[in-house]
Amino acid sequence: MTAEISEERAAFLARDYSRGFIKYCQLEAETVKRGFFESRVRIEPHHRQQDGFIHAGVMATMADHTAGYAAFTTVPEEYQILTIEFKINFLRPAHGDALVCRARIIREGKQIIIAESEVSDLADGSETLAAKAMVTLMAVHRDRLTSKG
Amino acid sequence: MTAEISEERAAFLARDYSRGFIKYCQLEAETVKRGFFESRVRIEPHHRQQDGFIHAGVMATMADHTAGYAAFTTVPEEYQILTIEFKINFLRPAHGDALVCRARIIREGKQIIIAESEVSDLADGSETLAAKAMVTLMAVHRDRLTSKG
Amino acid sequence: MTAEISEERAAFLARDYSRGFIKYCQLEAETVKRGFFESRVRIEPHHRQQDGFIHAGVMATMADHTAGYAAFTTVPEEYQILTIEFKINFLRPAHGDALVCRARIIREGKQIIIAESEVSDLADGSETLAAKAMVTLMAVHRDRLTSKG
Amino acid sequence: MTAEISEERAAFLARDYSRGFIKYCQLEAETVKRGFFESRVRIEPHHRQQDGFIHAGVMATMADHTAGYAAFTTVPEEYQILTIEFKINFLRPAHGDALVCRARIIREGKQIIIAESEVSDLADGSETLAAKAMVTLMAVHRDRLTSKG
Repeated sequence: MTAEISEERAAFLARDYSRGFIKYCQLEAETVKRGFFESRVRIEPHHRQQDGFIHAGVMATMADHTAGYAAFTTVPEEYQILTIEFKINFLRPAHGDALVCRARIIREGKQIIIAESEVSDLADGSETLAAKAMVTLMAVHRDRLTSKG
Repeated sequence: MTAEISEERAAFLARDYSRGFIKYCQLEAETVKRGFFESRVRIEPHHRQQDGFIHAGVMATMADHTAGYAAFTTVPEEYQILTIEFKINFLRPAHGDALVCRARIIREGKQIIIAESEVSDLADGSETLAAKAMVTLMAVHRDRLTSKG
Repeated sequence: MTAEISEERAAFLARDYSRGFIKYCQLEAETVKRGFFESRVRIEPHHRQQDGFIHAGVMATMADHTAGYAAFTTVPEEYQILTIEFKINFLRPAHGDALVCRARIIREGKQIIIAESEVSDLADGSETLAAKAMVTLMAVHRDRLTSKG
Repeated sequence: MTAEISEERAAFLARDYSRGFIKYCQLEAETVKRGFFESRVRIEPHHRQQDGFIHAGVMATMADHTAGYAAFTTVPEEYQILTIEFKINFLRPAHGDALVCRARIIREGKQIIIAESEVSDLADGSETLAAKAMVTLMAVHRDRLTSKG
């Protein structure tokens, strides 16, 4: 619950955040602290849905992935993080120019870690809470990642 | 609970399914029936995460969007569908060549509609259930879509 | 988001809170403000489960019901509140002498209202967060309560 | 997924089901098979809420506890089951004379087990699905139950 993470670890996690599907979605790390992770995406037309709103899938992906990286800040470097499940409520439609997501660990653990993610819509210089998720994660030692769990 | 949807409506929903973020993610409609919608995606490297598994965000986006289109099959044409919330459990890591998602409406309604989505991983010719979601949706008349709800 | 509720309304909701199953479970209202409701229960042997911990069902019932009454503080008196769904994470086993639950509305609405409930375990004079829920509620006019919705 | 459970184990779990809060709520085991558990409750006035419907907390308690006992049928006898989280959707108000709950394991595991519970309302001789839950459980060896996990 206590010690800060090293600058090297924070920088590594910030870089590591944007790979594969997350890079494809243009989500980027912004702030990394122990038990906390913030990410951001500038909205392009391909992030929207049929009615012009930002797609729920973008917010869900951001909420999940940012929670996962918040969990990474609380475990030793040889552990990987898997999402067991998450639940997300969409509080109001998002239609702005960018999204910011802030994830906080609300329960640390050697195996089970629980995070909350808040996704806010940035439009016309103001920020509005658009979605909130609760995410259950599991820390798995790198050597056991392929096992059946 | 009864009448089938017209071929025109089914064809329209199948086309309409792949727009914006969903087109960007290459998800495509497969089968459309009243209260049921099936979609599919061929997995590319940009759908994966840092460990090579298919990203949870792809499965969540697919589960949400396919549930939404299953809901579209149960409401009049002048209604739009919004996701209120969803919860998704990841049952086992997915690493195959394609995903298929099947969404079923388990509670119809004039306003509140509830769907289940199952996402299966296709690898080496066999199909394995990888994730399951429960999705709460709201039908909103097109003319009221911009209101505060 | 604005006006406070009247003392009469607060007192009515506090009394109304403990009826039927909630009275049977001995849950009681503690503090009522607009958009906020706090409840409490002194733990008896019949609130525990087979291992001596407080049963998850007690915490879930408390989280749901207290969220519902927080929603009541935001709607006109002729509206009833129904739970559409909730999700609850159990952060750590609770084994204390009492539970306190605090519910806050995080999204007001004429129809859809979203609340968060935190259930804390009181043991040896200190309070520990034991469970957290996100609750989706619906306000329904009293005259429409028996309709199909 | 394999062997059936012994008659002794099934009888033990059926008896063990109704202790503490569950006994207080008068929930009773009905059918026990590997990966499946069915329970029942005859509704009394103290199971209802302020509008005469069966309280959501009764259904949530039943969904959670029955899922837990379905999980017990899949693990060795020296393991205990804890609920990590659950989500429940209330599909329609329940007002009948009894509830029946059927829980099925949809993902077995040495640690993480996932179940679905369906709660049906029995009224006038017919059965209607009233609520559905997805439950994430953890198997913990009896000797480690008091540890921080």
